Amino acid sequence: MIKQLSVPTRTIMTPGPVEVEPRVLKALSTPIIGQYDPEFFRVMGEVSTLLKTPFETTNAQAFVVDGTSRSGLEAAMLGLVEKGDRVLVPAYGRFGYLFVELAERAGGEVKLIEKTWGETFSPEEVIAAIKEFNPKVVALVHGETSTGQIQELKEIGQYCQENGHLFLVDAVATFCGAPVKVDEWGIDIAVGGTQKCLSVPSGMSPITYNKKVEDILTSRYQMELGLSDEHRNSDFIKSNYLDLSQIQRYWGPEHINHHTEMTSMIYGIHEGLRIVEEETLEVRYARHSLNEKAMMAGIKAMGLNLFGNPKSKMVTVTCVEIPNGVDGEAVRSTLLNEFGVEIASSFGSLKGKIWRIGNMGYSSRKENVLHTLGALEAAILYHGGEIIKGEATLAAMKVYGSQK
Amino acid sequence: MIKQLSVPTRTIMTPGPVEVEPRVLKALSTPIIGQYDPEFFRVMGEVSTLLKTPFETTNAQAFVVDGTSRSGLEAAMLGLVEKGDRVLVPAYGRFGYLFVELAERAGGEVKLIEKTWGETFSPEEVIAAIKEFNPKVVALVHGETSTGQIQELKEIGQYCQENGHLFLVDAVATFCGAPVKVDEWGIDIAVGGTQKCLSVPSGMSPITYNKKVEDILTSRYQMELGLSDEHRNSDFIKSNYLDLSQIQRYWGPEHINHHTEMTSMIYGIHEGLRIVEEETLEVRYARHSLNEKAMMAGIKAMGLNLFGNPKSKMVTVTCVEIPNGVDGEAVRSTLLNEFGVEIASSFGSLKGKIWRIGNMGYSSRKENVLHTLGALEAAILYHGGEIIKGEATLAAMKVYGSQK
Repeated sequence: MIKQLSVPTRTIMTPGPVEVEPRVLKALSTPIIGQYDPEFFRVMGEVSTLLKTPFETTNAQAFVVDGTSRSGLEAAMLGLVEKGDRVLVPAYGRFGYLFVELAERAGGEVKLIEKTWGETFSPEEVIAAIKEFNPKVVALVHGETSTGQIQELKEIGQYCQENGHLFLVDAVATFCGAPVKVDEWGIDIAVGGTQKCLSVPSGMSPITYNKKVEDILTSRYQMELGLSDEHRNSDFIKSNYLDLSQIQRYWGPEHINHHTEMTSMIYGIHEGLRIVEEETLEVRYARHSLNEKAMMAGIKAMGLNLFGNPKSKMVTVTCVEIPNGVDGEAVRSTLLNEFGVEIASSFGSLKGKIWRIGNMGYSSRKENVLHTLGALEAAILYHGGEIIKGEATLAAMKVYGSQK
Repeated sequence: MIKQLSVPTRTIMTPGPVEVEPRVLKALSTPIIGQYDPEFFRVMGEVSTLLKTPFETTNAQAFVVDGTSRSGLEAAMLGLVEKGDRVLVPAYGRFGYLFVELAERAGGEVKLIEKTWGETFSPEEVIAAIKEFNPKVVALVHGETSTGQIQELKEIGQYCQENGHLFLVDAVATFCGAPVKVDEWGIDIAVGGTQKCLSVPSGMSPITYNKKVEDILTSRYQMELGLSDEHRNSDFIKSNYLDLSQIQRYWGPEHINHHTEMTSMIYGIHEGLRIVEEETLEVRYARHSLNEKAMMAGIKAMGLNLFGNPKSKMVTVTCVEIPNGVDGEAVRSTLLNEFGVEIASSFGSLKGKIWRIGNMGYSSRKENVLHTLGALEAAILYHGGEIIKGEATLAAMKVYGSQK
């Protein structure tokens, strides 16, 4: 017989999933109501409204796709891209390459431009590639957790708006932790994350898109057989589950049957987004910035090097070069098993070369930063690393202006 | 400012989503741990083991797809069907037609055979169609909630096994409420539901498949760009998010990064499946049967007619013909708003003609049956229906053998 769930308490300092807001955990345990209960429609409507604040948008369409972050990214790609459509993907880390996977599977003709991991593109580089390739869609990651870099979007988005390209942005790792100005930056369709800076468990993919995207989706809409055989469309979207034209009509006033909404998770995001409203975006972003400064000060005070271009460093992820002679995975194991602190390794060519420390949502707290720095110092020393002793947490405390 | 979540308490007697097990609600509020935490791998492993009991299988592969039920159905279809592959879909209700949608989107050549809603196929009819069409995949719904009918599978499955056809079964509405004998019935790939007879919230899609399916998936596997560019495959599966070959390798001992598992929902299904084990399948199925008998006795005692062929009636759904002159939607509204009881309408040609009453999971309880019958009688009378008064709940109590 398998025993009742029993899991340890962790300080989760990865770039997601991170610790869940306690109020969100409570909301998850609310008894459910039916998907067609008018009271549930009200809750869905409130979630849609609440989503527009961190996306900084007046778009009519804002809802969640029922799946983890990449489900929203795939839904966005499938809604816009048909066989042979050109998609430009400027990739500067793991999640840029995910866009290539998605675009290829949607049947797109993909042009990949690459940047050394740890850097981002200048707007001019991307705009030049757009001019040369003339893509229907430009797909770009806002915050690349694999490298801890954040891409400037505004000039690229404005160019796309003025020149008839669709701008698709993966804001999974920045949403609710750093500004994502959908309207001002000219983003046609944006996908956020729940399990990162919003501190709601993984499982939903917040998405918003403008009228231009909505019109494309509507032109491809087909009502399901089983509901009606009158609304067929030869240009139908190539997934049923990830069909935004249908999901929109399930969330909208028509409430046309599609999937069965994941009630409990909707309760969770409802509370998570309310917390964002209460805190305000300004205060929330400032909190993330302060904790980032303290973490960086501590890392540097140990004599460790940050990875990546400091000018384009993400606020919500700090990448640290693993010092020579230290087994990065052994340090991570000690952190987890002795201190209950989780930090991340990386992917592909960076695997074994950097640690990634998250600074997201409810995990972005002073005590987590101080605890992580102290634990990291001890774990590195324990595994024979040569670093400066006893300075890291003090340097962070100084950033916080801690008083004696 | 949007207020804190406040939803009414409902008696949910639809064919899903239904009331969630209280112990599952508590499990949902457990603080999360990271997706690469060894303790979380242990929990995932336990969920995999627990899933095999209600599927009655020794398959190596059993896990959840992170999305509502149709995400698992689409993943199954996309894994097996490539452009031009023949798919036979015998449809006897709304969810049969969903298989057509999925197969067409996977690029399959679909042969649809149809049955009047309220009936099922004889094994001979399906086998004859298989012989004629020679499909790669036969896709069949086990329990059709839209009509309340259950399809016999064993002879069809055995024919498929002996003749080299792949048998894909939608067991969303029967899983954990009625037997689903994956191995004995020759089912190659089966998809269950969470929000129905398991009484876990919507959001995950339990799936299991045998070695034959696993080999097909493995032959189509490609590792993601961003992790490696060495494992490309021209035959790749046409969704990334719903790619079972990748999801299997995330759940398996390799734990290759794909999505971020929806931790809280995994906690929920872990507890839900433990409850199934504790109750035992035999006792659980008997409970559903007894509650069905009581509900049917009450419905008949009112003088109402059941819809559909009684020989193939699902245990977990009871369809009732809306009596002449009664507005079915007005009755449903009164039930919901005055009694807090939710029952369902139906789809397509049955919309406005039948009510569908669920009998699933934690909602399948004596007090729910009695409460629903009393409320339904009153609501019909309130809206001017002519039915037999005062007999319904007594007839149900008699089935339960209630003592004076």
